[in-house]
Amino acid sequence: MADPSTSPPLTRASVQAAHALIKPYIHITPVLTNTTLNQLASSPLAPAAALASTPTPAPAPARPVLRFWFKCENLQRIGAFKVRGAFHAVERLKAEPGWAEAGGREKGVVTHSSGNHAQALALAARTANIPAHIVMPSISAPPKIAATKGYGATVVFSGSTSTEREAATAEVIAQTGARLVPPYDHPDIVLGQGTAALELQAQFQELTSDPTRFLHAIITPCGGGGLLSGTALASEGTPTKVFGAEPSFQGADDARRAYYSASGERIPVVKTLTIADGLRTPVGAVPWSIIYERRLVSGIYAVSEDEIKAALRLVYERMKLVVEPSAVVGLAVALFNEEFRTMVEKEGGDEGWDLGIVFSGGNVSLDALGKLFA
Amino acid sequence: MADPSTSPPLTRASVQAAHALIKPYIHITPVLTNTTLNQLASSPLAPAAALASTPTPAPAPARPVLRFWFKCENLQRIGAFKVRGAFHAVERLKAEPGWAEAGGREKGVVTHSSGNHAQALALAARTANIPAHIVMPSISAPPKIAATKGYGATVVFSGSTSTEREAATAEVIAQTGARLVPPYDHPDIVLGQGTAALELQAQFQELTSDPTRFLHAIITPCGGGGLLSGTALASEGTPTKVFGAEPSFQGADDARRAYYSASGERIPVVKTLTIADGLRTPVGAVPWSIIYERRLVSGIYAVSEDEIKAALRLVYERMKLVVEPSAVVGLAVALFNEEFRTMVEKEGGDEGWDLGIVFSGGNVSLDALGKLFA
Repeated sequence: MADPSTSPPLTRASVQAAHALIKPYIHITPVLTNTTLNQLASSPLAPAAALASTPTPAPAPARPVLRFWFKCENLQRIGAFKVRGAFHAVERLKAEPGWAEAGGREKGVVTHSSGNHAQALALAARTANIPAHIVMPSISAPPKIAATKGYGATVVFSGSTSTEREAATAEVIAQTGARLVPPYDHPDIVLGQGTAALELQAQFQELTSDPTRFLHAIITPCGGGGLLSGTALASEGTPTKVFGAEPSFQGADDARRAYYSASGERIPVVKTLTIADGLRTPVGAVPWSIIYERRLVSGIYAVSEDEIKAALRLVYERMKLVVEPSAVVGLAVALFNEEFRTMVEKEGGDEGWDLGIVFSGGNVSLDALGKLFA
Repeated sequence: MADPSTSPPLTRASVQAAHALIKPYIHITPVLTNTTLNQLASSPLAPAAALASTPTPAPAPARPVLRFWFKCENLQRIGAFKVRGAFHAVERLKAEPGWAEAGGREKGVVTHSSGNHAQALALAARTANIPAHIVMPSISAPPKIAATKGYGATVVFSGSTSTEREAATAEVIAQTGARLVPPYDHPDIVLGQGTAALELQAQFQELTSDPTRFLHAIITPCGGGGLLSGTALASEGTPTKVFGAEPSFQGADDARRAYYSASGERIPVVKTLTIADGLRTPVGAVPWSIIYERRLVSGIYAVSEDEIKAALRLVYERMKLVVEPSAVVGLAVALFNEEFRTMVEKEGGDEGWDLGIVFSGGNVSLDALGKLFA
């Protein structure tokens, strides 16, 4: 990872520069629409369901008008948006003065991850022809280990607590001199992840044949916050508002809770087993500075496990897309969160909103899916 | 259904005319590629697997070079290519001299189907603002009944034998005067289904930026044969060869068996419970006249249930697409059928083949999927 102090400023222009850097390595993923889901979202919830997600009883369910524009990062390389940040981090590293001269190409990169970031960094490193060391808990699912090795990375096993993982990572760094590429808490990663929103906006203009039109809003999942904060940077200075979505299960909505708290203090520890397993991490400091301190995110909403499952089922059955549970929390908010829907009704009126939804990834095993819907 | 004697001739030009008629009502579905699947298909099978699917022991597994172009009819309206034939049949009916004058609009259309054709005809009829009567076995899956009713059709229940279904259909016709729109055995249906191949060919030329280039071949599933024979018509007179794919389980490969039999007689009855449930029907007379009698199909290949499941898993995990088991039999042939692969190696040589694969549909319940991969 390039030294954060050498990172470009956290601005829309830097996201555009990141896009130019990584474009040769990533897919321009399709943007899809779906009439059935638009109709569903634009119909009021049954009163009971509407009440369930509202803190105070509402007089009548909201009647927002919503047109969805789905950015399909599940169809991205390695099946998730994470390659954007990983390729950007590696490209920035290659450009760091003195890095190659100090043997950086031989030392390579290292991270600890059992998720999409592991495969993303492995692919980016292989493409740059540098070694990647990936620290994974020894209890990781065998297909994930195999996939990471499949991209040519060296997998190093550790215990599964964060202390054990960090110790194993520190040991790899001591032994190899590899540079750490964290999954979200770094400017280069945030800037890379923001590129999905840039594409989405451009594709929306193409699809509507109106180069001056902007989405009213974009909603993305929020785990470590890389995607959400990158999207916020990509949208700064445009008419597009940015919202975050989290699972509420066992306090997984740390960003939402902090965002609406009196202190605005980031919550650094979360322990949750939400089915949206990509969103079990607390939001990082760099993302939080964009999301909250710079006020570039207009709101954060949470949904229940059942609402995530219902959204997942709709995407499988109606859109015929394989997405992981984490990918649909934004859609679940738009379909089921009465506070969000009331806000859209109020702000969008009869014209309604064009809402960009980022499907963040599609890496879910068929066995896990089978269990989810058994 | 228009009287078959009034149907356009079974030619490529008639498929083009059908496309012009139905274009306002259907999606131009995307054509996707996948590097991983290309690599997999272009690697020789493990010798044991290669031997398993070959009637005589082969000296070495085939080494074909394959580049896939996936036509995603799972992303079509109602989730399957069947809307193409249904819309074409209804459009042709509307154009039939005297039909409206004789009260055709009030009498509407009827079919018996518990599958994709039911929903396709329901949608086409609703769009034309005419009634649709759909005869379904009373044991049909409730979501399929609900979906068909959801498109505004009147569902009529019957017993599940073909005699009972036909009797119920005859009764509907006697009572309402509705016109029968069969699922595949009619020229108008065949011409409609062929339009997917026309689009695929044009999209291939666009994607390769070469308006003179043709796919070496297209492979489609074969149940009643509407899609396969339509594809063959759409490709007649072009350099593109057309192949059919069937499940071998319990004799579901009726078209393959007839195609290679001494007599070339169509096999009119099939009893199979293959997981590729859209392909349990025997091939129809009109499709057979194109597939076999006119020799417009160059070969038919079969695959096992395990090979279908393996292909299904790859499409879910690698392409992130929801497809029904019937949709992947063509891919399964290209990946696992050693006879097909040997033929491609021989004919394609080092340059290999650009192979169009039609993913016919994506209508599968999550519960069924869960069971399949449990």
